[in-house]
Amino acid sequence: YRDALPLAWIAADWGSSHLRLWALDAEDRPLAQQSLPQGMARLTPDEFEPTLLTALAPWLAAAAGSAPLPLLICGMAGARGGWMEVPYALLPAQPPFGAPQRVPTRHPRLQVSILPGLAQQQPYDVMRGEETQIAGFLAAQPEYSGWLLLPGTHSKWVALEAGRITRFRTFISGELFALLSEQSLLRQLVAPPAGSTGEGTAQTVAFDAGVMQSYQSPAQISAALFSLRAEALLADLNAEAARARLSGLILGLELASMAAECRNQPLALLGAEGLVARYQAALALVEIEAEAYPVAKLTRQGLILAYRHYLAR
Amino acid sequence: YRDALPLAWIAADWGSSHLRLWALDAEDRPLAQQSLPQGMARLTPDEFEPTLLTALAPWLAAAAGSAPLPLLICGMAGARGGWMEVPYALLPAQPPFGAPQRVPTRHPRLQVSILPGLAQQQPYDVMRGEETQIAGFLAAQPEYSGWLLLPGTHSKWVALEAGRITRFRTFISGELFALLSEQSLLRQLVAPPAGSTGEGTAQTVAFDAGVMQSYQSPAQISAALFSLRAEALLADLNAEAARARLSGLILGLELASMAAECRNQPLALLGAEGLVARYQAALALVEIEAEAYPVAKLTRQGLILAYRHYLAR
Repeated sequence: YRDALPLAWIAADWGSSHLRLWALDAEDRPLAQQSLPQGMARLTPDEFEPTLLTALAPWLAAAAGSAPLPLLICGMAGARGGWMEVPYALLPAQPPFGAPQRVPTRHPRLQVSILPGLAQQQPYDVMRGEETQIAGFLAAQPEYSGWLLLPGTHSKWVALEAGRITRFRTFISGELFALLSEQSLLRQLVAPPAGSTGEGTAQTVAFDAGVMQSYQSPAQISAALFSLRAEALLADLNAEAARARLSGLILGLELASMAAECRNQPLALLGAEGLVARYQAALALVEIEAEAYPVAKLTRQGLILAYRHYLAR
Repeated sequence: YRDALPLAWIAADWGSSHLRLWALDAEDRPLAQQSLPQGMARLTPDEFEPTLLTALAPWLAAAAGSAPLPLLICGMAGARGGWMEVPYALLPAQPPFGAPQRVPTRHPRLQVSILPGLAQQQPYDVMRGEETQIAGFLAAQPEYSGWLLLPGTHSKWVALEAGRITRFRTFISGELFALLSEQSLLRQLVAPPAGSTGEGTAQTVAFDAGVMQSYQSPAQISAALFSLRAEALLADLNAEAARARLSGLILGLELASMAAECRNQPLALLGAEGLVARYQAALALVEIEAEAYPVAKLTRQGLILAYRHYLAR
């Protein structure tokens, strides 16, 4: 049994588009990890356990013994229509945000629990998964006051006071960009995503122009989108520039809404490198400084925190 | 030959989603008409003439003689990627906006011409088809000063001074509504279009709330859309109310952009009855009066005007 995996529990981030799994030992050190495309949006409720078992089979086989194996999940798995709906914790809130709920499973060794998301009543807003990433951020600076910005399909701007989330606002920027660039009247004039060649000066100029246009005239967004098409017809707008401008127009709308509130306060950006760089560039245009914060371990750290608080003996 | 159709020419409105045809006699009186779903967006360039010939076969068969038969088209048929690109006329402009261009055809009797659309350079904007409807409107009041609002997939607000179009602005409101209600995160919580039962008080309240929210805080639109979803999760937002609110949110964005410019000026609404009623309700909320103008004959009248000016002997 010397080679057996000293697996103590499993942490999971199950979002709409992905499933990430970490095998952890008794001291929460990562032994192995997986990232799979089986997001919640692709699965029906009865497919959750089989999907998990298929992914975990190698780890379960390598792990000695027959003791129960805790598995703690954050993210959309706990949403309505997910594996099992776990009610939201309410604001104001600080980690750990709320007790995980046990999900009945057929496998004898797995003890699966799902963490709640967070809800805000006024204005209505919700998150599932991001709160655990924020918990990981707060593990390193528990008394943080200021803003966190988590860009993505649904960007979240989160206000904290001394380590407590007091309010937040979600923008559907990433989804709007995808709909407009792939399905709207703009689809034929917007270039597909750039490859490894990166972005040139013309794109930067176009992105900046889009950001400032929406920032200064947010009400014009729907007209600005049609105008992009007209420019392509009348002035041979370049497809890469059109893509950059569209991205800037949508991002500028977030800034028009949030810049006044965030100005002169700490602002930390948690997200994928390229996206974070784009937000930093846009924020710089309206003279807001934002610090990019390394995110690789945050969700795992948030899951560990909740595990220690609620599940570990 | 007494029964032969005294067909003198044919007027056509060929848009993205439809083809409308009128058979007219030598005094421009309508003899017959057709409305077909063969819009430009569904056709490749080599399908235009065959589509037209199939539609016109009964009229051609009934029309006596072998004299050339003029056919004048307005709309997207003249767009890039349409039957033949006809360059735009530029602003400022008044009817007739520009000479039609002949399209080569294989059929010996048909003489097909396509009218230009209108383009604006600053900010870039274009129309194809609406200018002919406006020409029809101006036929009855050639010295009109004020605004015309043509709601639709792409709503157009058009400023006129003494019968001349000086500028215009297009909003992609109808397209945004379709994308968001059918393809976005909102698709599961927005009711399908109401049938003949019409709209109740709850819908009116939701529509009005959406209009005012976007009108007062246009920069929040992307957050307001996510908030709709959160409200459905947290407060059981009714699906009909969600649809009405979404419609109001998108329409309110147009008002936030245009209300200041239109206030205290004549504003005539040209469009389908239900849509026009919705715009009137929204405009009333921000205390702008708009008159609904009957549109059934406008495009035909605009085509007749251009025919008389450019093609008739």
